[in-house]
Parts: sequence; C-alpha cells; structure tokens
Amino acid sequence: MPASTALSLGLDFGTNSVRALLVELATGREIAGAVADYRSGTAGVILDRRDPNLTRQNPADYATAMTRCVRAALRQAARTRSFRPDRIVGIGVDTTASTPLPVDAHCTPLALRPAFRRNVNAQAWLWKDHTSFAEADEITTLARLERPEYVRLCGGVYSSEWFWSKIVHCLRVAPEVFDAAASWLELCDYIPALLVGCGDVRTLKRSVCAAGHKALFHRPEGLPTADFLNMLDPRLGELRSRLYDDACTSDQAAGGLCATWAKRLGLPEGTPVAVGGIDAHLGAVGAGIRPGTLVKILGTSACDMLIAPHAGPMPDIPGVCGVVDGSIVPGYWGIEAGQPAVGDLFHWWVTNFDRRKDAHARLTAEAARLRPGQSGLLALDWNNGNRSVLVDVRLTGVLVGQTLLTTPAEVYRALVEATAFGARVIMERLEEHGVRVREVINCGGIADKNPLLMQIYADVTGRPMKVSRSAQTCALGAAICGAVAAGPQRGGYRTVEEAQAAMCGVKRRAYEPVRAARRVYDELYVLYRRLHDAFGRTTDGAPVGRVMKDLIELRERVRAAR
Amino acid sequence: MPASTALSLGLDFGTNSVRALLVELATGREIAGAVADYRSGTAGVILDRRDPNLTRQNPADYATAMTRCVRAALRQAARTRSFRPDRIVGIGVDTTASTPLPVDAHCTPLALRPAFRRNVNAQAWLWKDHTSFAEADEITTLARLERPEYVRLCGGVYSSEWFWSKIVHCLRVAPEVFDAAASWLELCDYIPALLVGCGDVRTLKRSVCAAGHKALFHRPEGLPTADFLNMLDPRLGELRSRLYDDACTSDQAAGGLCATWAKRLGLPEGTPVAVGGIDAHLGAVGAGIRPGTLVKILGTSACDMLIAPHAGPMPDIPGVCGVVDGSIVPGYWGIEAGQPAVGDLFHWWVTNFDRRKDAHARLTAEAARLRPGQSGLLALDWNNGNRSVLVDVRLTGVLVGQTLLTTPAEVYRALVEATAFGARVIMERLEEHGVRVREVINCGGIADKNPLLMQIYADVTGRPMKVSRSAQTCALGAAICGAVAAGPQRGGYRTVEEAQAAMCGVKRRAYEPVRAARRVYDELYVLYRRLHDAFGRTTDGAPVGRVMKDLIELRERVRAAR
Repeated sequence: MPASTALSLGLDFGTNSVRALLVELATGREIAGAVADYRSGTAGVILDRRDPNLTRQNPADYATAMTRCVRAALRQAARTRSFRPDRIVGIGVDTTASTPLPVDAHCTPLALRPAFRRNVNAQAWLWKDHTSFAEADEITTLARLERPEYVRLCGGVYSSEWFWSKIVHCLRVAPEVFDAAASWLELCDYIPALLVGCGDVRTLKRSVCAAGHKALFHRPEGLPTADFLNMLDPRLGELRSRLYDDACTSDQAAGGLCATWAKRLGLPEGTPVAVGGIDAHLGAVGAGIRPGTLVKILGTSACDMLIAPHAGPMPDIPGVCGVVDGSIVPGYWGIEAGQPAVGDLFHWWVTNFDRRKDAHARLTAEAARLRPGQSGLLALDWNNGNRSVLVDVRLTGVLVGQTLLTTPAEVYRALVEATAFGARVIMERLEEHGVRVREVINCGGIADKNPLLMQIYADVTGRPMKVSRSAQTCALGAAICGAVAAGPQRGGYRTVEEAQAAMCGVKRRAYEPVRAARRVYDELYVLYRRLHDAFGRTTDGAPVGRVMKDLIELRERVRAAR
Repeated sequence: MPASTALSLGLDFGTNSVRALLVELATGREIAGAVADYRSGTAGVILDRRDPNLTRQNPADYATAMTRCVRAALRQAARTRSFRPDRIVGIGVDTTASTPLPVDAHCTPLALRPAFRRNVNAQAWLWKDHTSFAEADEITTLARLERPEYVRLCGGVYSSEWFWSKIVHCLRVAPEVFDAAASWLELCDYIPALLVGCGDVRTLKRSVCAAGHKALFHRPEGLPTADFLNMLDPRLGELRSRLYDDACTSDQAAGGLCATWAKRLGLPEGTPVAVGGIDAHLGAVGAGIRPGTLVKILGTSACDMLIAPHAGPMPDIPGVCGVVDGSIVPGYWGIEAGQPAVGDLFHWWVTNFDRRKDAHARLTAEAARLRPGQSGLLALDWNNGNRSVLVDVRLTGVLVGQTLLTTPAEVYRALVEATAFGARVIMERLEEHGVRVREVINCGGIADKNPLLMQIYADVTGRPMKVSRSAQTCALGAAICGAVAAGPQRGGYRTVEEAQAAMCGVKRRAYEPVRAARRVYDELYVLYRRLHDAFGRTTDGAPVGRVMKDLIELRERVRAAR
C-alpha cells in the first residue's frame, strides 16, 4: 500500500482550459485543484467565420496554462499543513483527442516557429475540427475496398475528427506545413514529451489510447501499412516511417520530470510522468470503470466508455467508434462510443435563443416543471453530427412540433431529451452486440450540476443513473495513471484496478427511473427512432430521408460559390 | 360621380385592435385614421394556458374600442379645414372570421349579461380558436358520407376555425350557453347590427361572405339542411330555424346608423352602413382585386384572394378553403386560400427566441445579409397548422438543418422562406386547377414594412411582387363598400368596380425576382415539398410522415391525463 501521505498530480487538458488536481493515493481525496484557460481565439479555440468546420488551438497555450494551474494548485495545497511537493509520487496526463499537431524532430510544435505562428494549419487541430470530412470519406472508402479490417477497427466509418483525416487534409491544403513537420503528435503525447523533456521524437513513448482509437494502430501490424497510406498519397507512406511502431498503455511511465519543467512547476525533478491518455478514457478510469459498467462522461460532448475482458473475442459493434486493446484499463478491450454535442447543444441554445440573465438556471427551472410529452416537441441531437451509431459528422439538428406557444424552455427540454434518446440508441446497440450494460456511472460537469438531465436520462433509458463521487474524473483518472506509473517501488500502485479500488466511488444518490415518465418516453423513443432512421440514412429510398443531406450539400455549394 | 368632398368611413376589426379610416371617394386619399386596442386578455385575446387551442374575445371590447377609434379619427379629420361629419356618405365594416358569438333575440351578446360575463364559452370565439378540432373532423366525415357537395364548398375539409365546428363544440362543452343563445352572429354581422340598432336578430341582413366561406351557406339551399345538422345533433337542426335563410353582399346597406350610435360616434343619424365582410375579402377589394389578380394580405396570417368570372363554372380547387358567389366582388366567384401563421410566426420567434432590444429590426438586418441556402436551414411554416392545401390546423412546425453555429437571424430567415414556400404551394395549386395568376398584389402591414420578405417572396415564387398603395386595404375595402352601400343617390358609387377604379392603386416599386436567388430557391422548394408531403399526409405509409401526427396525439393524451 502507498504511504498515507502520497499524492498524485492529474493534468486534464480540456477544450477550453487545463485543470491540475492533487489526489491522495490512499483515499482518492482531492486536496487541491486549479484551472487555467487557454488564451488564444474564442475561449481558447481558433475559429474561422467563413468555415464553420474549422477549430484549432495555439499549442503555446497548453504550456502556459499548465504552468499557471499547477502552480495555483500547489499554492492551494501549501495552505494545508503537512504538504510538501515531494509527497507527489507521479504525474498523469489526459487530453482531448484526436488533437494532432505537427512538430519538428525535437518534439517542438511548428506553430511556435515565427514562420508558422500565423498559419492556422500549423496549430493543433482540435478534436472537433471537421475540415477533413472529404478525406475521412476517402479513407473509409479506401479501407472498405482494400483493408476491411481497418473499417472494423473504427466502428464502420473513419471520422473527420481523427488523426489521418486531418493529416491528409493538411497535406492538401497546407503542403508547406506537412513538409516542415518531422512528425505529428497527439496532444496526449505532446504534454508528456514536454514534461519529460523529450528531445528526440523517435524515442517518445506514444499513447496506445490515442493511437488505437484515432490512428488505426493495432497489433501486430502497428499503424496502417505504408502500402495503404501510399494509396492515399505517397508522402503519407513516407511520413509513416517517421511516426511510431509501438504504443504504450497509460500505466507506464513516459519518463521522469525534466529539470526545466521541474523548476517551472515547482516539483521534484525525476517525478514519473505517465504515458498520456484520452480524457474520456482516463475519465472512465477515474469513475471506476469495470466490466459491465458504462461510464458516461457528460461535458460539451458525451463519451460512453466500457471495458470487456480480454479473454473473449474483440467486440465488433457497428457504428461504435472503436475497440482498442488496453486503451482504458490495461488487460481489457477499451470500447468508446459517444455523442458529439451535449453540453455544447444546451450552451448553443441557452446563449443564442434566450438572452435573459441567468438564462441557463431559468430554462432549467422552467423545463423541470414540464411533463414528458407535454410540449409536443421532438428533436434530433445532431447539431454537431452523430458519432454513434451513424458515424456521420455532417448530420444536423431537427426540431419537430413547434406551435406559436412553444417556449425556449420547452425547446431546451426537448434538446435534453434528444440527447437522452441518443444515449439510449447507443446502449441498445451495445447490448445487441453482446456488451452487457449492468450499471451506468455518469461523470463530468453536467452529471454533477444538472439533476433534471440525470432524471430524464434515467426515465428515457429505464436505468438508474449513478454519479461518480469525484467531480473531476478525467483528472482523477490521470492521477491514478500517475500513481501506477510511479509503481510500488516509488510509493505508487501496482495496477490500475488496485488504485481504482482505493481512489474511486459513486455518490450516495442515484437517479431512479419513474414508471409514468418511462411509459411516455418509450413512446417518444419510437418516434425518435423513426426520425433518426429517416434522416440518418440516405440509402433507404424514403424521400424525406434525403432532405437533410441535400440541404447540407446545397449549403456547401452556396458557400463555395461565394 | 361622387362629390369631390364625399368621404366614406371604413371600420376594420382585427385580431388585437380596431381601425377607423376616413377615405375620399374621388381619389382614395386617406384623410384620417386611428386605431384602438381591445382591452381584455393578452393584447385583446383571452387565452388559457392549459389549452393552447383556446382563443376568445370579450364582445364588449368591440364597441368600446370602435367608439374610441372613430372619435379619434374624427378629431384628426377635424384639424383639416373643410371637414364636416356630414361629408361621410357611408360606413363599411370588415372583421376577422369566423369569429361567431352567441346573442339573444335582440342581437345582444350573451357575454354582456352578468350570468355569462366570466363564461369563456359565451365570449366571441376568435377565428384562430382551435378547440373544435374534433367537431371539425366530425363535420367533414359526415359531409363526405352524406353531402359530398358540402365538402367541395369548403375545399375538401371543414375547419375547426369555422362557424359550425365552434357551435357544435359549445353545445357539448357549454350547453348552458348554447341553450341561452337565440342565435349566433359572425362578428361582421354583429358590428352592423350594433350600428343600425337592429333589435330583432331575425331581421338582420347577414354577410354572404362569412355565411358562404364559414357556414356552408350556398344557393339555393342556404345553410346546410336541418336533416344534415340533426345528424350532428338534433338541437342544431332546431337552431338552424333561428339563424337565416338568405345572405347579402357587402355592397348592400344593412341599414342606417341608429340614433344611439350616431350620437356616440358623432356622425349623422341614418348614414348607410354596409353589410359586413371578412377582413381579407374587403382587403382584396381595397387592394384592387380583379380577375387574374392574386391579392395576398400579409398580417398575423396570410389570406390569398382571387375572383373568377361568374360566367365559368364554379372553380373546384382541392385544399383551397372556399369558393363563394359574390363574397369579394358581387358578380364574381370569390376564392380564398391562406396560411394561418405569417406575422404570428415571426412575432413568436422574435419575442421568444431573441430578447434583444429592437430584436425584430436587428434580426431583419442580419437575415438580409444571408444568401439563399447559406444557413442550411429549412422550415415548415405550420406552427399554427396548415390552411391550404392540406387543411389541417393541428399540424406543427419543423426545423431541419441546425448546427452549433446556427443563429436566431438564420432561423428567422428560414421562417420567412418557409412562408414563401407555403405561398408558392398555393399558387401552384390554383394554376393546376385552372385559376390563372397574372399578377400578385400584396397588402397588409408586412407587405408595407418588410422589403426583405417581399424580395424573398419574389425570388421563391418567380413572380414580381406588387404592393398596394394603401397601407390599410381592409379598412379601405370597407370604406369602398360603405361608398357603394350609399349608392349614387346618396353621393356614393354604383358598383364596387367603379369605386375601385377611383380609390385603389399599387406602389410604383414592385419587387422583381432575382435569377440567382430563384435558382437556389427552386432547389430548396423541392426539399420543402418533400418535407411538406412527408409530414403533411398520414396516408402515404412513409413512417416519418406519421411522426408529427403521433407526437400531437401523444401531447393531447398527456395533457388529458393531467
């Protein structure tokens, strides 16, 4: 057992900010935490009004924001007696993904060079950047023809949000960036590289979590073959040789904290730094994931995480983004599904369509007074596309049922319900393909702060909704990985499961489904499925099913004709 | 020719207020005008939060508001030299319809009696009251079985907005009101009854416009037969004998202004008061309607008016609300179609979903900067149901294409476009059934104040949009009827056409279709038709087509189960 004084530092790089969390190894108690915003663009995101698909980040923001929040957390911890920085036995890192960035041979982002500072394609390509939708289609089509096993690896469709789509798009729209890059790092590889002072990109330990879920990495082959990549572009096959052949789970150490960053952060040099992981995956670790547990991470988007014992065959679930060996807990298949807009959807509605002060609180209070089915509204939750089970980022929202008396609060509730129906679609798909869901643990800001949403999720899915004890499961999961990367010999844990048993838990209150609400929602769900199937597929021949796609195509043509 | 000094008074009873307009017979010049709001309920409309279908009005508001606005208009006119009340040769009246109210034998509304003052079913049943949807279905079904010619009279479906639906509903939910009523008057009959001091409801001249379009009145039979009405309820057949056997066009006088109202308004006793008409029909007169001219009256709702020569057979246009002999101009078939929410739709959006100061002006300015197709949005304009060509008041709105970047102005423009597509559906239906549309004259507040909407209508329909010279065509049409009711011997006109030739005109500027916009809108229109047909019909077997109806049914059940 680790010493009762041992701490781990979890660093959680989100869409708009980074969080530092100091956690006791023995109890999971969070003794200090701080957040720092990224300072570039709009709330840390570089946008382009002419292209709604473009979202980038300035890599310089990561280092400066990390420095601010770690120092703030340490100052906060220092107010407790008995705190000393050398109680921190390990550091873990989780980030958004796929957020790749082009780097030089020394792991330095091209965006930090003066020549590329203003080049939007040299920045980090944020997970929700959708500029690469054509390239994603191309990769999917090629894989279906040439390497159908790649299609299976990623749930049927390779996404525009992912590593290769973004790199191929960069190669086409910004060859000067592509040519200048020695390699490309996922953000969850870049932060450990920075902290351990990795000066040679070829020696960097890459995250199997990002590699497997975003870059088609799989054993024993590794990344997609050069032959396959050459069919996309010969320069890609050449790039492959400068990327990586192996990838590691996040219980391993990427190295020890380098002198520069030890000084900058005020931590002991040599502190083990774990291999990075994707935020949702380490969030699932922090929420206490185990076989049969669905962890829902509810933030701007929703990630649904499960693990399945290694003993069985690799689960094959059409429309579920990915199944990767060891991506969540070493020794288990990691399964990921999700919805690309949850908090973002509500935020969009509240900030644009109800400009009252305290609009969010007011809308929530008004929506809570409505009964299921009362408003006559039904929405599709696709304002940012659909990740599971349709895997089509270009799909859009639908709202049906408005009258002249429809209020913003009614629409708000319909949007919450739409995300719940979307969540149910995923659960049903998982169970249809042999992955049992025995309990649901929710985490993320929304799970903590929105009891109305939690109750609706319970009523729509007919399952109790548990809530993780920690409000910061991603950072907690990162801290757990830090503790395991340190290992028993340096005061940490031997395995992720051992650390989880000591450090994770759920809140006493679970949201139980209410029978009357369930009955109404069961009926609404049938209608949701009809809209879902009609608008989500283009091949069923029903004319209305093509309306949305035709609309999008027309919008693109109009924009291109500017 | 009338004297150059002759004036007529037009009284236009709208949804929220009444307007008085004084017009020169020789030129159509409007020398004075005033508006007075109804004071009961919300903007003059009595609502019930538990039942969104209920909209009523307090009949006492009509008299008090009329008195205020006529006196204000006369005070205004009195500021011009040479004005004297005895220059007013006639009075005409137009009102919303079907807005029936129960009255006693002396034409006094039951709602004015203390016993009924708070009884919502004894008030005027405003045109947009939809509580009677079940009764409307019942009447349609019965007519299809027993008297298919009645179905033809009203464009295929008898509406819940109309006379008989409302009376049958009253009979069922408020038999005490039904039993106490000696008769029922349309609002356009009630106002002339009041002005001429009609003390015996059996002698009152009824409007053929309201009778024909709303109560299935037709020659030579008159109202539906007692046999037919008895099949709905035996008490209805008995009521028929207390209603009316004949009805008059609005070029006839209902009588002379009575002493009481002459004093109250400050006008000469005995001034001829024309038989009332429906606002849209007299608005068409004021806009200068003639064969081949489609007059669009754009206000809270849209009314599309045409006339066809009597010589031909009665036009039979499925889904177009009604064709009535003489309802617009005596000697022509009057044809009416429409959209139940235009201004109301924009008002709903602007007041609920954009709470900025000057929201309407800002949204219009922002929407004007968008190009057709750019937003990727498509809406159905059915928040208040569909009048033509689906004739289904329970249909609801649809919005497709939202992303996380969609703005209130984009939705606003999509709603404007949706009403334009709806307008095009009606035009195509008219022409498919032999009613040529050679020009379009727009009138009503929106035609005057919203150039963006007018341009979109031109671009969507591919036709020039002319705008009536008068901003108050309904009141002007009423004034024209007052002038014709006076007749040449009392200083008025001999025919409506003669009066129109002197008193009507269009503005110099017409909105011409722009080719590039037309091309995009032609494509969007195809998609609109797909949504329209999929959601508007339940019988086509396409599952998505039933989603909306099922939603509504569920909403009703949930509300009923309260």
